[in-house]
Amino acid sequence: MMIGRVVGSVVSTTKAEKLNGKKMLVVQPLDMVTIEPDGKPLVSIDTVGSGTGEVVMVVGGSSARQTAITKDTPVDSAIVGVIDHVEIDGKRTFESGGSE
Amino acid sequence: MMIGRVVGSVVSTTKAEKLNGKKMLVVQPLDMVTIEPDGKPLVSIDTVGSGTGEVVMVVGGSSARQTAITKDTPVDSAIVGVIDHVEIDGKRTFESGGSE
Amino acid sequence: MMIGRVVGSVVSTTKAEKLNGKKMLVVQPLDMVTIEPDGKPLVSIDTVGSGTGEVVMVVGGSSARQTAITKDTPVDSAIVGVIDHVEIDGKRTFESGGSE
Amino acid sequence: MMIGRVVGSVVSTTKAEKLNGKKMLVVQPLDMVTIEPDGKPLVSIDTVGSGTGEVVMVVGGSSARQTAITKDTPVDSAIVGVIDHVEIDGKRTFESGGSE
Amino acid sequence: MMIGRVVGSVVSTTKAEKLNGKKMLVVQPLDMVTIEPDGKPLVSIDTVGSGTGEVVMVVGGSSARQTAITKDTPVDSAIVGVIDHVEIDGKRTFESGGSE
Repeated sequence: MMIGRVVGSVVSTTKAEKLNGKKMLVVQPLDMVTIEPDGKPLVSIDTVGSGTGEVVMVVGGSSARQTAITKDTPVDSAIVGVIDHVEIDGKRTFESGGSE
Repeated sequence: MMIGRVVGSVVSTTKAEKLNGKKMLVVQPLDMVTIEPDGKPLVSIDTVGSGTGEVVMVVGGSSARQTAITKDTPVDSAIVGVIDHVEIDGKRTFESGGSE
Repeated sequence: MMIGRVVGSVVSTTKAEKLNGKKMLVVQPLDMVTIEPDGKPLVSIDTVGSGTGEVVMVVGGSSARQTAITKDTPVDSAIVGVIDHVEIDGKRTFESGGSE
Repeated sequence: MMIGRVVGSVVSTTKAEKLNGKKMLVVQPLDMVTIEPDGKPLVSIDTVGSGTGEVVMVVGGSSARQTAITKDTPVDSAIVGVIDHVEIDGKRTFESGGSE
Repeated sequence: MMIGRVVGSVVSTTKAEKLNGKKMLVVQPLDMVTIEPDGKPLVSIDTVGSGTGEVVMVVGGSSARQTAITKDTPVDSAIVGVIDHVEIDGKRTFESGGSE
């Protein structure tokens, strides 16, 4: 999985029926050490009630369909966690403002 | 998922039987902030009645088979939505001409 | 899916049993606008009777197994169509010599 | 599969239900010859009791769900082995301190 | 699929139960024209009795599980053939020493 920041959203009226009611967010991948943007933004389905500005964990491929919200759905990316903190080499490289 | 613009189509007479009747479009991936071309065009199966010039959402891998049109079909990319608008950092980076 | 040109073949005597009788071709991916080589050649299983020099459509990943020839077979790439023509921005960037 | 070193961890309170109790580690991919960092760190689910500093084998995609711990779980990366040693061209490029 | 040369092996005592008895080889991907190293080595499960120095065909992703040896196993790469020869543009770019 990778981590990223929720930076936006996508709205589509004409879409696959199974996507009805799904929240389609734009996630900017982040470097796990610097917590700076690293890589191209992508569209990911929210499954945990995440919101703009939050740092989240994103799963890709067929595994993105392994949640109640995304089962049998044509999605290849899902947000499956809101990150509280990331620790690398004994140091916290990210700590959520609200969670501690 | 990624977003892209429908820029063309591919025609094949000799093809896998399950591809009969499928609309094979060429999609140019777009940067979600600048809405400029970014990355190589690919062939994607239309599942939502999209047309040339439209900005669409594209799903890849096994998830491309999770629609009525692409079920059990040898395709690794499907168009699953026509984008109305994209919003990033509170600004609309894309807005469909016809939808608002 | 991507398009490529069939440029060669691979022969293997000692191979997974399910690969017996499969035609293993070498495909050079092509840029869809210039129809020039773009990216690394790969080995792909022919499912449509394609031959050297032809421009074909190639599917990757688990979807490569969604044909009668490749079902339950350890292959991650399959040729699923011979391309008649490619049209981008209203212009034919490729047209098969024999088909029109 | 690739090899990497466990360098950290990620904590998430709000997450997909199936991720409860899973150990989410940060793995830095390594070059198999130099055993130096090579590529971006990623989040991987531990399935073998691995710990910080260890060199591990990581599996990606749907195969990451083929363990008792990750079955039907929205994860696209799993640690499936602790590496004792790597041998390339007849030389040990890596040997675990504790194992021999 | 891609081709590569078997250059080494990985040993792991603490590993996923389903990996017991599997031969974990290190494969260096090769350019199919020059037969020179091209890309990063990876760990791949041998399913055809291949050995060091041999040029092999490697399958990735879920398709790597489509052999009797790798079924339901957490592996994303498998060696499924020993290459006898590769022919590109009418020329043999590789020919196994022992096979002809």
